[in-house]
Parts: sequence; structure tokens; C-alpha cells
Amino acid sequence: MASLGEFEFIDQFLKAQAARGQPFYRHPQALGIGDDAALLPPLAANEQVAMASDMLIEGRHYLSQVDPRALGHKVLAVNLSDIAAMGARPLGFTLSAGLRDIRPDWMERFLDGLLSLARDAACPLIGGDTTAVPADAPEVFSVAILGAVPLGEALRRDGLQPEDDLWISGHLGDAAYAVSRNAEDPKLNWPQPRIELGMRLRGIASAAIDISDGLQSEIMHLCQGARNRDVAPKTLKAVLNWESLPMGPSVTASIASTALSQADAICIAITGGDEYELLFGAPQRERAAIRSIGAALGLALTRIGHVESGRDGPQIDWVNTAGQPIPAQWQQRISGGGFRHF
Amino acid sequence: MASLGEFEFIDQFLKAQAARGQPFYRHPQALGIGDDAALLPPLAANEQVAMASDMLIEGRHYLSQVDPRALGHKVLAVNLSDIAAMGARPLGFTLSAGLRDIRPDWMERFLDGLLSLARDAACPLIGGDTTAVPADAPEVFSVAILGAVPLGEALRRDGLQPEDDLWISGHLGDAAYAVSRNAEDPKLNWPQPRIELGMRLRGIASAAIDISDGLQSEIMHLCQGARNRDVAPKTLKAVLNWESLPMGPSVTASIASTALSQADAICIAITGGDEYELLFGAPQRERAAIRSIGAALGLALTRIGHVESGRDGPQIDWVNTAGQPIPAQWQQRISGGGFRHF
Repeated sequence: MASLGEFEFIDQFLKAQAARGQPFYRHPQALGIGDDAALLPPLAANEQVAMASDMLIEGRHYLSQVDPRALGHKVLAVNLSDIAAMGARPLGFTLSAGLRDIRPDWMERFLDGLLSLARDAACPLIGGDTTAVPADAPEVFSVAILGAVPLGEALRRDGLQPEDDLWISGHLGDAAYAVSRNAEDPKLNWPQPRIELGMRLRGIASAAIDISDGLQSEIMHLCQGARNRDVAPKTLKAVLNWESLPMGPSVTASIASTALSQADAICIAITGGDEYELLFGAPQRERAAIRSIGAALGLALTRIGHVESGRDGPQIDWVNTAGQPIPAQWQQRISGGGFRHF
Repeated sequence: MASLGEFEFIDQFLKAQAARGQPFYRHPQALGIGDDAALLPPLAANEQVAMASDMLIEGRHYLSQVDPRALGHKVLAVNLSDIAAMGARPLGFTLSAGLRDIRPDWMERFLDGLLSLARDAACPLIGGDTTAVPADAPEVFSVAILGAVPLGEALRRDGLQPEDDLWISGHLGDAAYAVSRNAEDPKLNWPQPRIELGMRLRGIASAAIDISDGLQSEIMHLCQGARNRDVAPKTLKAVLNWESLPMGPSVTASIASTALSQADAICIAITGGDEYELLFGAPQRERAAIRSIGAALGLALTRIGHVESGRDGPQIDWVNTAGQPIPAQWQQRISGGGFRHF
């Protein structure tokens, strides 16, 4: 097992890295790593704080042999994705790590991936700790992240209204397809949190969520979220066009080469996790505004269906462009639900 | 290994617990557990956010057989102690847990300890996640916590000035003494974060830190912290009276019964970790104000020495009330440094 000396080295190493390339706060009363707690610069008037946290465990959320740069990126990206899904601007994050030992090359690359994304997202590392875990235990990384959003403008899960369109960013399927083949894929290893999109959707989207557990499961969360509001109808039904789902390039290529059936592709796109795209609802009157945002960001934004008042609890009807229901055997496969880490 | 169903149960369980006994935010635009991120009520004008995080690993920071109520308390208490050491008021916290399985009785008691302290500290649980770890892996808990403090009034580590007094809250030694005997002790199992003290020390203390790694090591941190400020002298020396150290009741009783030598007691008090008392500096003119705070809180506040301009880097001189240096063999024992979790 590594000695504490090495862990102190890591703390120093983090500080050095942070000082070199980090978007550190310039406010004279802000404080990064090194005190009992970090101090953030004051928020803008009328902003409120958004906070999320996520733990990644070796062998559960990532494989031991993963490229450490990609792992560093992903540990932060999945948390930034939560901040994006609230429409918040990132403020900073803490990292707690439970490590078996210190492998300097590995750590340097991990921090490179982590802090490159932190810099790009203007989201500095402001604190954390490192602890030794036993030699046969999985390593663990826990990030907590803060964002800021104007009061009342956050994109919540509970705002969906009947007749709202449902939209998704980017494309689906490549991450889960890579997992199923034990393959690498940029979508799986280098997820891009949709921070700018989330911020631009303030005042436009009625509700938003990031797709970490699979499209179908996240749609159900939005429909269930609406139930919790007094003002909304108690039950929403989503009507979605499976032919409209934007497939990722890996999935598309594999359909073309017949390595993957269309049924498999649809199932992967609907249930696959680790997408980190945004799923959001918006009134029909916002279609042009949303298309403009997509064009400005160079990001595909696809309308995949809408919601309407339902009966008998939240549900999803999958149809094709002609309005015909999805084949029964496909429905059976996708009704198993979202991607599970367990 | 537990199924995801059980983990979903835990998420629900946390929500139910939270709804029952938690100091949830009453602001209409605040949001607790259940969305991509929590939303905090807006801060008061001119407040800034303080953020800390701490990870506890089974077998490293606590023993498997620990009372789960005490563990739940401690997981939050060590983080609240960091917020207290900044002089901040608690705002809320997230909890990430890596668990081998779900033991409902155990979890109920863990949450009882955790949420009782959350309620007492007005610091609600606002998010988090649970993940399964392998059957032979240590369990892990990671908390990230937020506080708020008026801009520029935080108690930082870098504010110590020559001639400042050094003070500590409460008493020392009982936690480390319990660890050394593999015994239970309220100080070890139920640490009390000094939140109210920290808030009252704003504008009075020049610097503060919580004693998690041992008094001697924390004093060095304060002396080193002062080096980082342009306005302070580059080098501070702490002159401390070992006869003035307030010993805990367990240590005091064991000295009386001769189960513990005075030398051992001093060494434990100076190097023992897990105290979670506040160590702070303050100008001499604040002595009466500090004594008033101690009286108002019913909390012992003890002046243990002072700092002066030094040479040759930060250092500590231990002396007795008559000004004589600490015996050489004691000095040797304590110079090993603070308590190590490793």
C-alpha cells in the first residue's frame, strides 16, 4: 500500500496542476484548494446554487484498463452533465479519490483528462481528498459539483405540460453499443456535457434531464415529474416516433454493414445508458428558437415526439412516422427498461 | 450482491426520511433530492459559498463493527467541522455511498444518526447516490457540504499575525486515547462540530482550522498559511504552553488512576487526531470577547499560547507555565507529527 507521503505528494501535485492550467477564481476573496473549505466568488444578483454529486467505482462504472485520461474526463463530465441538465453555469467541483496506490504516470494522465475538461468548462477543481484503499479493493472517485442559475430559471424535471414537444440533443446508441461489444467509442469514453445548450434552453424548455440511464427511463422520469406539480395534469403520456431517433455513427455504420439489425439498433437507442445527451420538453411555439440554438451550437437537436394528457399513470407509446405502433417483439425487448450499472 | 431494486429502495428511503424529519428548504424555487441537481434557496446579499468534501472508507476511517448511528453522525460531523472552521453557516450536503448490500436495520440506524445531526445543524441532505461495491470490498461514504459566509468574513488559514493568541475549543486527547485502546468514547464516536462557535468568531479570529489531524500538525498549517500572504511576515513561530492544554475527561481520569502517564497524555493531546475542535488565532484585544463567547455557548475556550515572528521556517516551541522547554524525551515523541489514518 502507498504511504501517506505519496498521498501528500498527490495533494501537492493537484495544487501544482491547478495552479498551472486551471480557470482559478480571480476574485480576491475566493479561495481554491488548501483551506478547510473552498470559498467561491459571490454569485450574480438573483442567482441560486445548483449542486450534484456522482460516485464512480472501478469495475462498476469503468473498467480497470480504461485510458486514465478518458477516466479523468468522464469523472467530471457525468457531473457537468447534471449541471447542464439544470441550465446552470458551472462554478467548481471537489474530487475525493480512494486509491490503491500512486502510479505517477497514470495519475498525470488522469489529471490531464480531468483538468482539461475543467478548463474548457470554466469549472475549477476547488477541493477534495485522497485516501488509500486496500490492495484488492476497487478504486473509487466521487465528485460534487456546483453551478449557478438565475432564480426560477432552472430546467427542472417537473415542468412538462400536455402538447409539449420532446427533443434530444446529439445522437443515441453508440455508447451502449460500445459497451455491448466491449469496444471503445468516443461517445462512451469522452462524453461531452451539453453545458452551453442547457444555458440557452432557459426560458425555452419546460423540463430537462440528462440521459444517463437510457432514453426510455428518462422520459418516464419527466412524465412522473410532472405528476408532482399541482398545476399539471396528474398523468402524461409520451408519444414518440422511433423512426425519428438520431442514431450515432457507429450504430449507423453497423446497420449499413448488417452487423446490427434495425431492431437491435432501436432497442439500444431507447434503452442504452451513458449517453449524457439532454432530453427536454418545450412548447410547440419554441420550435424555431430551438432550431436556431442547434444551428448556433453546431449540435443536432431532434424532435422525437410529444406528450399529451394520459390515463392510468405515465406511459410511452412508440409509433412510426405513419402513426403505426412499434412491432410487438420490439416493444417487449425495450420494456425491460433502462441500462443498469448492476 | 444487492440488486438495483434495493438501491432504488434506498433512494426512496432517503427521500421518505428526508421528507419526515429534515429541515427542508421552504423557498418555492428551492429543490431537494430528485432532480439532476439540487437547487438552494438564494443566499443573503453579500454572502459567498464555502464548499468542502470528505470521504470515509471502512477499515480506514472507521471500523466495520461501529454503531451505524454513530457512523451516520460522524460522516456528516467531520464535514460540518470544516464548514464551522470557515465561520460559515451550513446550507446542505450530498452523500454518495458505495455499499456491499442493503441491511435495512443498519441503514435505518445510519440514516437516523446522519439526519438527526442534519436537522440539528439545519443542514439538509439535498442529493447523492448509492452504488454496489463487491462483496469483499470496503464500504465508502463521500459527503460534500456547502456553507454560506458574508463576503470577506470567512475564517481562513492564512490570517495569523505576530503576537496573536492561539486558542482551542473543548478538550483534547480522548478521541485518540480511545483509538489507542480500541475503546468507545463520545469524543471519537459522536464528534460535535463547532458551528455556532465558528460563526461567532467572524470578525474576531484572525485564522482558524479544525483539528482533524492533530493539534501540532494543525498549528503548523496555520503558521505555514501565514507565509502565503504577502502582508504577513514570512515566518511565524508558535510558543505553546503544554501545561495549559485542556485534557478530556477520559485522559484526565486515566492520569488520576495512573493508567496513563502525564507524558503519554501530553503526547496524545498534541498529536492525536479526530478531535474536531477549532484551533484559532486572535489578537490579544479579543480575549474578553472570546471568553464571552465561550460562556454564552457553555464551551471551554482555552488560550494555549501565541505566535511571534520567527526565523528558519514555521516552528513550535513547547514550554511550561514557567517558560521552561518541554522535556527532551517528550519533544522527541511528539515531533513524529500528527495522527495518521494510514
